[in-house]
Amino acid sequence: MGVNDTVLKPLDHLIATLSAEMAAVDALIRDRMASQHAARIPEVTAHLVGAGGKRLRPLLTLAAAKMLGYQGNAHVLLATAVEFIHTATLLHDDVVDESRQRRGRPTANLLWDNKSSVLVGDYLFGRSFQLMVETGSIRVLDILANAAAVISEGEVLQLTAAQDLRTDESVYLQIVRGKTAALFSAATEAGAVVAGAPDDQVTALRDYGDALGIAFQIADDLLDYGGATETIGKNVGDDFRERKLTLPVIKAVARASDEERAFWQRTIEKGDQRDSDLEQALRIMAAHGALESARKDALAWAARARAALAPLPASGIRDMLGDLADYVVARVA
Amino acid sequence: MGVNDTVLKPLDHLIATLSAEMAAVDALIRDRMASQHAARIPEVTAHLVGAGGKRLRPLLTLAAAKMLGYQGNAHVLLATAVEFIHTATLLHDDVVDESRQRRGRPTANLLWDNKSSVLVGDYLFGRSFQLMVETGSIRVLDILANAAAVISEGEVLQLTAAQDLRTDESVYLQIVRGKTAALFSAATEAGAVVAGAPDDQVTALRDYGDALGIAFQIADDLLDYGGATETIGKNVGDDFRERKLTLPVIKAVARASDEERAFWQRTIEKGDQRDSDLEQALRIMAAHGALESARKDALAWAARARAALAPLPASGIRDMLGDLADYVVARVA
Repeated sequence: MGVNDTVLKPLDHLIATLSAEMAAVDALIRDRMASQHAARIPEVTAHLVGAGGKRLRPLLTLAAAKMLGYQGNAHVLLATAVEFIHTATLLHDDVVDESRQRRGRPTANLLWDNKSSVLVGDYLFGRSFQLMVETGSIRVLDILANAAAVISEGEVLQLTAAQDLRTDESVYLQIVRGKTAALFSAATEAGAVVAGAPDDQVTALRDYGDALGIAFQIADDLLDYGGATETIGKNVGDDFRERKLTLPVIKAVARASDEERAFWQRTIEKGDQRDSDLEQALRIMAAHGALESARKDALAWAARARAALAPLPASGIRDMLGDLADYVVARVA
Repeated sequence: MGVNDTVLKPLDHLIATLSAEMAAVDALIRDRMASQHAARIPEVTAHLVGAGGKRLRPLLTLAAAKMLGYQGNAHVLLATAVEFIHTATLLHDDVVDESRQRRGRPTANLLWDNKSSVLVGDYLFGRSFQLMVETGSIRVLDILANAAAVISEGEVLQLTAAQDLRTDESVYLQIVRGKTAALFSAATEAGAVVAGAPDDQVTALRDYGDALGIAFQIADDLLDYGGATETIGKNVGDDFRERKLTLPVIKAVARASDEERAFWQRTIEKGDQRDSDLEQALRIMAAHGALESARKDALAWAARARAALAPLPASGIRDMLGDLADYVVARVA
């Protein structure tokens, strides 16, 4: 694919601009996912790493460092560490959600077993911290150790809150900040830190990653009620069938009549679902403008992400990151 | 329990000597296992942390630092980090092994669910790296990040090798070094590093931890074929029923007649077990002196652990660590 501003999507534009660095990340991923003793580790990892993800998170780290003039190699170490943390959380998520499909392919827990997914995920966590140690930066380790704790805290919160109708928008935001935005913001913040950026620029990139991650996750949750299976790599209504309270449902619950409330209690809290329930859920959400309201929230977070970039020096990559914020919500705009 | 050399077991002697530091570790564990957002995290952690484990690994870190004259607080941070890594691996192991009992109590995966065990384990990994970051020592982070990778590598190797009769003593040693000795040796090595010890002392304490961990695990594997349930917190023959090749079986397989080989293939490789098979396994192992040979190996590793302490300055704690090496194999001596 050629570099052509008029046809490239923002993400592809960023990939093309950072192609040399991304090639170095790819090589490092393949090198470090190896195991001297346990052949299953690279097998499981390669299944997921080779599954055609866009490597959005390592791109964010590379973009942050490069736009701030960084010349060394630590951003490649860091971007690989970020991708390993992401891969580890995917492996563990698929065990937790008992998923059978990711990115249109069978999950590792289905192809191998839950044991392999748990332990290979742990291995990748260990490997990611080894890579961070190689950067020699305690501050980078601090950022990513915090992110690792916040990610799993968000996932545990989701576990207990996702089927509880009392879960409101503020709890949803905590969950999303944990399970998605924490790694986005750590990726951009750590990229700025290795580049030796001043504090206001580090903060700007952290805020950008935070808002981008929230916009991304709200869009993802919206798509679950309206995207095509080939676009989203899962089936419409998966969250509903898995009884996972996401923003559109939370908004509909907040505005529910007594009868609607009984519907949500039966389908989400009790998990007693019938064939026509997904259609009924969509009708109720539409009646309250819940999908439209969630869509506006996603766009507002994308706008916040773009605005967060203002303190940063003007550059091609800064513009691409701004466009990327619009792009992650374009699927639902 | 009073400090009395004539009645205290080596481990209790160490606990009494380091009681102030262990109290600080206990307080830090309770502080850091909390979660602002997810109440399930401290619930699950407290179940395991409160289950009466001896906290052997954090003791090793404290002992190493204190015997080398360390005066600061970083060894408490580090010891807590080590215990969190250990707790995280226990949570994940119980999911992997589908265990129902640990230390005589129901496992977290049974009381809550696999999801909580996976995610709370991840949270504790993140928390442990935050604690290491607080020490400010990249070298300590290096040691423990390596240990984290090696631990899960050993577990994955066990997953694929444990039901394969081709697994020999060298593969067994790799597995044991990973799943047990890596954290023992990281605990002692990191304790020496925070104390600012010279390289030969750091190496001595790392080698001590390595040999102690191997001795400990061989003894544990032996007890599975001969300990009392109340002593070992699990039932005799669990490893056999779970088709886990451990040292006594590996030794018996190496010396097996054709008929015996068929027995191991049926019971371990195929998992086709009948009521009298455990007794038959014990008879075969006894006939080849397999338990006796494994027992000698455990004692030899304990002796190596004691010998590794030689380059260290003489001290009460050094003597206790030497006695501890004998103590971990005393259960099978």
